[in-house]
Amino acid sequence: MKTRSDTPDLEAARALDARDALAPFRARFVISDPDLVYLDGNSLGRLPHAAAERTREVLAEWGEGLIGNWNAGWMDLPRRLGEKVALLVGADADEVLLADSTSVNLFKLSVAALRARPGRRTVVSDDLNFPSDLYVLRAALAAAGGQRRLRVIPSPDGILPSPDLQDAFQADTALVALSHTTFKSAYTHHMAAVTAAAHRAGALMLWDVSHSAGALPIRLREAGADLAVGCCYKYLNGGPGAPAFLYVRRELQNALDNPIAGWLGCEDPFRFAPEYAPAPGLRRFLTGTPPVLSLAAAEPGIDLLLEAGVERVRARSVAQTEYLIARWERDLQPLGYTLKSPRDAERRGSHVTLGHPEGLRISRALADRMRVVPDFRLPDNIRLGVAPLYTTFEELARGVEALARVVRERLYDAYPRERRGVT
Amino acid sequence: MKTRSDTPDLEAARALDARDALAPFRARFVISDPDLVYLDGNSLGRLPHAAAERTREVLAEWGEGLIGNWNAGWMDLPRRLGEKVALLVGADADEVLLADSTSVNLFKLSVAALRARPGRRTVVSDDLNFPSDLYVLRAALAAAGGQRRLRVIPSPDGILPSPDLQDAFQADTALVALSHTTFKSAYTHHMAAVTAAAHRAGALMLWDVSHSAGALPIRLREAGADLAVGCCYKYLNGGPGAPAFLYVRRELQNALDNPIAGWLGCEDPFRFAPEYAPAPGLRRFLTGTPPVLSLAAAEPGIDLLLEAGVERVRARSVAQTEYLIARWERDLQPLGYTLKSPRDAERRGSHVTLGHPEGLRISRALADRMRVVPDFRLPDNIRLGVAPLYTTFEELARGVEALARVVRERLYDAYPRERRGVT
Repeated sequence: MKTRSDTPDLEAARALDARDALAPFRARFVISDPDLVYLDGNSLGRLPHAAAERTREVLAEWGEGLIGNWNAGWMDLPRRLGEKVALLVGADADEVLLADSTSVNLFKLSVAALRARPGRRTVVSDDLNFPSDLYVLRAALAAAGGQRRLRVIPSPDGILPSPDLQDAFQADTALVALSHTTFKSAYTHHMAAVTAAAHRAGALMLWDVSHSAGALPIRLREAGADLAVGCCYKYLNGGPGAPAFLYVRRELQNALDNPIAGWLGCEDPFRFAPEYAPAPGLRRFLTGTPPVLSLAAAEPGIDLLLEAGVERVRARSVAQTEYLIARWERDLQPLGYTLKSPRDAERRGSHVTLGHPEGLRISRALADRMRVVPDFRLPDNIRLGVAPLYTTFEELARGVEALARVVRERLYDAYPRERRGVT
Repeated sequence: MKTRSDTPDLEAARALDARDALAPFRARFVISDPDLVYLDGNSLGRLPHAAAERTREVLAEWGEGLIGNWNAGWMDLPRRLGEKVALLVGADADEVLLADSTSVNLFKLSVAALRARPGRRTVVSDDLNFPSDLYVLRAALAAAGGQRRLRVIPSPDGILPSPDLQDAFQADTALVALSHTTFKSAYTHHMAAVTAAAHRAGALMLWDVSHSAGALPIRLREAGADLAVGCCYKYLNGGPGAPAFLYVRRELQNALDNPIAGWLGCEDPFRFAPEYAPAPGLRRFLTGTPPVLSLAAAEPGIDLLLEAGVERVRARSVAQTEYLIARWERDLQPLGYTLKSPRDAERRGSHVTLGHPEGLRISRALADRMRVVPDFRLPDNIRLGVAPLYTTFEELARGVEALARVVRERLYDAYPRERRGVT
């Protein structure tokens, strides 16, 4: 395979891997095809060996312990795993729970926030946020009642937020809800500064940290963030559709009510009382019975990050995205690729987005012909995700060579323009 | 162990098992302790061997196919498994989806129903319904807006519904929401008659079939039911916290909107459009990314029921609950046990509830001393769940003998009155 030849770039990349303190972590993941360049860990993280093992254990628990498992550990999983995620996102142990999907959690927290700010009529977000977060925020507005609206502040270039974003936080702003690291460009908001601005306006601040959790240090509590949601199947390597997490700042927990009051959020779930009484603290934000197999399987991925340390993960992520940008500048820009991620590493998450008019067909050719799996987002964003626990510099070098070759040799011509995306 | 001695009752029970057409299905489940009498399949069904196998396959898919799995089958799981559940609940293939938890699905469907009936001010349920369903219905009332209230019609005896239940369906009733088989007594509403009464009042009818699905034939479509939700971890043997299902009658699907609009319910999830446009048909009721491990693991349990046939399952269930009631009458009534399930098999689901003033302590002694696992619900309900795919008459005979012995020898005296329940 042409991309396996030992070019000087490949040798240099291998040298970078050889002296990397995190390199041994790659062996903790299932790498079934060592030739595959997987640059989509920002969409679905790889399978940790320990997650496969843990899942087999939970199957054995189900088969042997049956219903008794609920009191022997299953019931405590949302809280116990939440304690671990709290360490990744800079929260206290009693401020994070695993539950439901990111969207359902966003709905719960934003309805709760709106009901707690009855006099304020606006929710502010921006168009760098996940579109699905905007759908959920509108749904939350409808469910919270009152005449409220969502203001979506447009980004001037689709990469950086509007310089006027914080001006939109005003006296009628109930809630500011943003993606911490944005899914297209990887632009990463300054959490503390934006949160402070929201608070100056008297608004509550909610962060979706799906694209930053596990990739860079997050300090929710230190930043004063009120609410957060995030996903466990990206950099947390929790498995496809793993239950999401939610964060509520301790001081707010008893002031907010779960709008989907369910049995697990009750003060006493097994009393089966006719009237709902919320549990004190964060547990009130649980609703139904959690999917135990998927929940338990998420723990080893979180453990690996804690073992590696998020600061070290971040250092390698920066080195790897800097590497990609340098290679783009030298090798890909001349071929028509544009850089659609911030140059400033401080403001960049763990992926690098390249634009190209043939982005869709390039992505297909990469996966199909070059054994390189990037992530594609309409209209022309090729996202190269770096998951430092298993992504190697060699993979990045091979990925860059493949991107160059697909354009240089017009390999994308063989593919239709009609799209078919993946999550 | 005393209960293993070959009493004439045990021999008779074994003879019943020996001539039972469904008896071979027990071998399709993991039975790690053949001496354990497990009468809690109405709370957590046993592990099918094929579910363990399927879970291992999905782990391999995750490890090897990575993100590509979404287009290679994962994305279709909610619909494809829904088609199978549809066969169990008498719905058409395009009327059932797997998603979220039962509570979240109940919230989604009841908010949608209330918004579709803006002029009507009442939701009617009864106190035989799951308390958590009542919590969710109240939450749905708050989210749907308008000044509405929940009327909970009390049962006169906690076993049968009020004879006046249907009188409560009036011109201002937006929605009637009931458990088909009720969790305490196993009383099973006459689905077609109650649905017809709701419709005569102009209300929509929602059934929670969590305690009947997989245990008895359900004919949602034939009954004219508008909406239904149900759980996959009881008689469907889908695994702890397996994703739940939801049913929306086809004719209503495009008239209702998902109140938690999310990306998977979009017309085109991968377009990432800034504005939500619902998918045509039932898919709009999806919200976030499903927990794939838990979802995929639910399929084999459903397949086993389809292979056995729900009519045959029901026939054995009736025979087994009748057996329990006959044994209660002869052996347990004299010891102070009361029957808290309907005598009429037509109106009884797949568990038999016995009351006893020492119910809680008896349950603990059964599990602890006699290796019999019943299910306990406050204040004094000992539920004996019959899951005909694996419950044997021998288990029932041994269970009855244990119930008798615990009271006869006051074995429960060793246990504290302070409770600690399981789901």
